[in-house]
Amino acid sequence: MSKKLTKRAEDYSKWYNELVVKADLAENSGVRGCMVIKPYGYAIWEKMQAALDQMFKDTGHQNVYFPLFIPKSYLSKEASHVEGFAKECAVVTHYRLKNDPDGEGIIVDEDAKLEEELIVRPTSETIIWDTYRRWIQSYRDLPLLLNQWANVVRWEMRTRLFLRTAEFLWQEGHTAHATREEAYEEAEQMMRVYAEFAEKFMSVPVVRGLKSESERFAGAEETFCIEALMQDGKALQAGTSHFLGQNFAKAFDVKFANKEGKQDYVWATSWGVSTRLMGALIMTHSDDNGLVLPPLLAPIQVVIVPIYKGEEQLAQIAEKVLPLKEELKAQGISVKFDDRDTFKPGYKFNEYELKGVPVRIAIGARDLEAGTFELARRDTLQKWTVNADQVIEAVQTTLKEMQQNLFDQALEFQTQNTREANSYEEFKSLIETHGGFVSAHWDGTTDTEDRIKEETKATIRCIPLNQKTEDGQCIYSGNPSKGRVLFAKAY
Amino acid sequence: MSKKLTKRAEDYSKWYNELVVKADLAENSGVRGCMVIKPYGYAIWEKMQAALDQMFKDTGHQNVYFPLFIPKSYLSKEASHVEGFAKECAVVTHYRLKNDPDGEGIIVDEDAKLEEELIVRPTSETIIWDTYRRWIQSYRDLPLLLNQWANVVRWEMRTRLFLRTAEFLWQEGHTAHATREEAYEEAEQMMRVYAEFAEKFMSVPVVRGLKSESERFAGAEETFCIEALMQDGKALQAGTSHFLGQNFAKAFDVKFANKEGKQDYVWATSWGVSTRLMGALIMTHSDDNGLVLPPLLAPIQVVIVPIYKGEEQLAQIAEKVLPLKEELKAQGISVKFDDRDTFKPGYKFNEYELKGVPVRIAIGARDLEAGTFELARRDTLQKWTVNADQVIEAVQTTLKEMQQNLFDQALEFQTQNTREANSYEEFKSLIETHGGFVSAHWDGTTDTEDRIKEETKATIRCIPLNQKTEDGQCIYSGNPSKGRVLFAKAY
Repeated sequence: MSKKLTKRAEDYSKWYNELVVKADLAENSGVRGCMVIKPYGYAIWEKMQAALDQMFKDTGHQNVYFPLFIPKSYLSKEASHVEGFAKECAVVTHYRLKNDPDGEGIIVDEDAKLEEELIVRPTSETIIWDTYRRWIQSYRDLPLLLNQWANVVRWEMRTRLFLRTAEFLWQEGHTAHATREEAYEEAEQMMRVYAEFAEKFMSVPVVRGLKSESERFAGAEETFCIEALMQDGKALQAGTSHFLGQNFAKAFDVKFANKEGKQDYVWATSWGVSTRLMGALIMTHSDDNGLVLPPLLAPIQVVIVPIYKGEEQLAQIAEKVLPLKEELKAQGISVKFDDRDTFKPGYKFNEYELKGVPVRIAIGARDLEAGTFELARRDTLQKWTVNADQVIEAVQTTLKEMQQNLFDQALEFQTQNTREANSYEEFKSLIETHGGFVSAHWDGTTDTEDRIKEETKATIRCIPLNQKTEDGQCIYSGNPSKGRVLFAKAY
Repeated sequence: MSKKLTKRAEDYSKWYNELVVKADLAENSGVRGCMVIKPYGYAIWEKMQAALDQMFKDTGHQNVYFPLFIPKSYLSKEASHVEGFAKECAVVTHYRLKNDPDGEGIIVDEDAKLEEELIVRPTSETIIWDTYRRWIQSYRDLPLLLNQWANVVRWEMRTRLFLRTAEFLWQEGHTAHATREEAYEEAEQMMRVYAEFAEKFMSVPVVRGLKSESERFAGAEETFCIEALMQDGKALQAGTSHFLGQNFAKAFDVKFANKEGKQDYVWATSWGVSTRLMGALIMTHSDDNGLVLPPLLAPIQVVIVPIYKGEEQLAQIAEKVLPLKEELKAQGISVKFDDRDTFKPGYKFNEYELKGVPVRIAIGARDLEAGTFELARRDTLQKWTVNADQVIEAVQTTLKEMQQNLFDQALEFQTQNTREANSYEEFKSLIETHGGFVSAHWDGTTDTEDRIKEETKATIRCIPLNQKTEDGQCIYSGNPSKGRVLFAKAY
C-alpha cells in the first residue's frame, strides 16, 4: 500500500492531516468546514463516549435532549455570552424550498421566511436556561444534573479535521444548584472527571487549571480546563468546565424558593468535551508509521495475520487461530483475524501499524511446527515469540503495559517540555526554540496577556491548580506576582 | 399529586398529550415544533438505541457520522427524492450575526450570505451518496454497511410530541451493494430487525409489509415497513427500510468495477427508525393510570417504597431493603429505593404508576413482623405478598411475565381489530365504527388508493408479506385483485 506518511520532523501539520485521512478516521465533506467521521474514527469516538457517559452517570447525571435551534432573541439575553458566541453561527431564515420557475433546480421560497431567525446551536446554555425556568421552582427541584450528547455548529473560517470544524460532536453538561459552593464544586468535579478520563483511557497526561479572565467561556465566572501537550510542543485545550455563577439564571429569570421560603437565583455550571479529543489522542501518541492507540480506546485491540502458502497451510493456521480468537474474545478483548487472500502479510502489517492496532499476532509455517505465535506491539514496535499456551497471558499483559507506557511516555515528554522562564528574553527564546509549556510569573492583567500573545503568539493556557505560592515579578511588566502560570502556543 | 389524567375513552388524543408531559417524557420547547426530551423519556430512548445498535452491529453494520448540512444543489440530483423531501426544510442562508446598529439586539449580517444555501438534513441519502462516490471503486469496497445516529429536521406544520416533530432523533442506515439481490435482501433483513426489536423489546406486535407505490419513500423502488396498531384503532408506521435500486448511484454517479472488470452502478438501501417509536410504545400499552413500560425498556424496573412512622421504623425497613436492592442490582435489575420523607406512600404509588415502573415493592410494619414484602405489577395492577427469601425470584418471574403479557395483550388487540371487508359499504362502516386494520381487495392502482383516502381518510398501511394469494375484486373499482391489503387510518 502506498500510504507513506510525511514524517513528523518534516512537517508535523501535514503529517497530522495525512494520518487522519490515511488511517480512515475522517475526511472533509462537500460542505465547507464539515467533516465525515469514518467508521474507524467513529468507533474510537464511541468508546470515548461510552467511558465518559458512564463517568457522568456515576457522578449522578442524567441525559436529556434539547432542540438544535435557538431563537435569535435568546442569544441576546446574556450580554457577555452573545459577545463570545453569537457572531459566527449558522442562521436559518427560511423553512421551504420550491421548484425554480425559471430553471431546473430548486430555490428558497421567499414566502416562507421565518418571523424570527433560528440559530443552529453553537452551545445550549440559552435554550436550556429558558427551559429550566419552567422546571425549577423550589430547592426540592435542585440540583438538576443534566447532560446531552449533541452536534453543534460554529462557523470557523479555518478548519482542521477534529481540531476545528464548523460542525462537531460533543457533550454539554448543564447543572443547576441551590448554592454557590455546590455549583463551584460541581464545575471542579467535572474538570477532574475529564482529567481522569484523559489520563486513564486516552493515556494523555493533562494539566488541571483555571483559565485567565480573557480565556474564560463567554458568560462564565470561572473556567476550569485540562490542557495537554502535543508532540510539536503546542498545547491543546482538551476540556473545559465552567462555573457560571447566577449569570444565566438572571438572564433567563430562573429563581427558586430556598428552605426558608425566600426567592433566590439559581447557580449554574456547564462543561463539555468534543470530537476535538480525537485530535489530542492522535497527536499525543502517534508516530511516523501511523496511529498509536491506547488499548482501552482501540476498536481492534489484537489483529491476527496468517503467513502462509496455499489453502492447505491457511487451513492449518486457521485451526490454531480460531480457538485463540474465541478465547481472546471471551476475555473481553476485541480481535480480528485477517485471512484475506487479496493482500500479502507485509501489506497487512503496514495497514495495522497505520491504524494503530495495539497488538499484532503473526503465525506462519515455522510457528505451526514450533507451536508458537509471533507477537508485536505497536508502541515500541518490539517483536517476540510466545508459546501457544502463554499467548493469552502475553496479550493481556502487553495491553496493560502499553496503556501505561503510552501515559508514561507522554508524561515524560510533558515534564521535559515544561520549562521555567524568569525574564521576557528567556521566555521568548523558549517559546521560539522549544515550544512546550513555559512557566512564568504574570501580573494578572489582561493587558499584559494580550501583549505577550501579540508579540509571541503564546497564550496563558492555565493557572495550574497545583500552582505554588511564590513571590516573583511579571516577566513582561515587572509588576509583582504571587505564582507562575503556564504559557504555550496552542491549537 | 394532582396528576389526574384524562381518560382514554373520553379523549384519546388529549390523554396521550397529557401523559407524555405528566410522566416527564418530553415537552414542547420555545422553538416551534421542536421538543425537549426529558431525562425519563431520554432514558427509555437510550435503552432503545442500545438494543438497536447491538442488532445493527450483529448484522455487520458500523456507525459513522455525516454532516448536518446538505448543499441545496445536492437535493435536486435525484428527481423523485427532491419532490418528496426538499419542500419543507430548514434553510441556512447566512453565517454571521452582528449587533444591531439601530437597537439593542442582534441582527443577521447581510454581508455574510452563503453563496449556496445549506439545508438542515431531512434525511442523508444525498450527502452520503455524494461521499460514496469517493469511497467505492471496486467490488472489493462492497458491501458498505453503514449507519448513523443523528438529528434530522422536517418542517412539519402540525406537530405532536414524539409522533411528529420538526426536529427528531433517529438512526439512518445507508448501504451499498454489488448486486440487486444483495441490496434487496439487506432491505428486507433490516425490516425484520426492526420487527424483532419492536416485538421483543417494545412488546409491540407489528405487521411486516410493503408500501404501495404512493406511500413509498421518495427515491425508493420498494419500501418495507412495520405497522403497529394503537389502542384508538389508528395505525402507526414504526419503521421503514428502502430498496433504492440504482437511483442514488445514478444521480451521484457511483460506479464500481465488478469481478469481471466491468463498470456498473452500485445498488443501495436505506432504513430508519426514530423517536416516533416512543409514541408507539406509549400508545400501545399505557392506561388511564399512566404509562405502562415493558420491563426491557424501563429505566427503573423495580421501585421500593417504605411505609413507615418515624425515623426508627424507616431505619428498620432500610435494613431489610438495602441488601435486597443490592441483590436485585447484582441480577442486572435496575432498582430505586424511594425513601424521601417529603412525600407520602400513596403519592409515591401514584407517581410510579404514572411513570410505568413495572414492579413496585412496598414494605411496612406488618411486613417487618412477618418477614414479607408486598409486590405489585403495573400491567395487571395485581398486588400480592411474598416471603423475603422468595422476593428475588418473584421479581424476576414478574418482569419476564409482564414483558410477554404486554405483547400478548397487544397482539390480541391487533387480532381482534383486524377485520375483512368485502364491499366498499362494509369497508366504510368498519373504518367509521371500529377503526383498526381493514383487510380488503385492492386493484393495485394509485387512483383507487387516492379516492379511498379522500373519501374515508383510510390509507393502505401495507401489502402484508404474509399476504395470501386469493382472487377477488377491488372493493372500490370492482377490478380484479390477487390478494388483500391492509387499510387503516394512521398517525
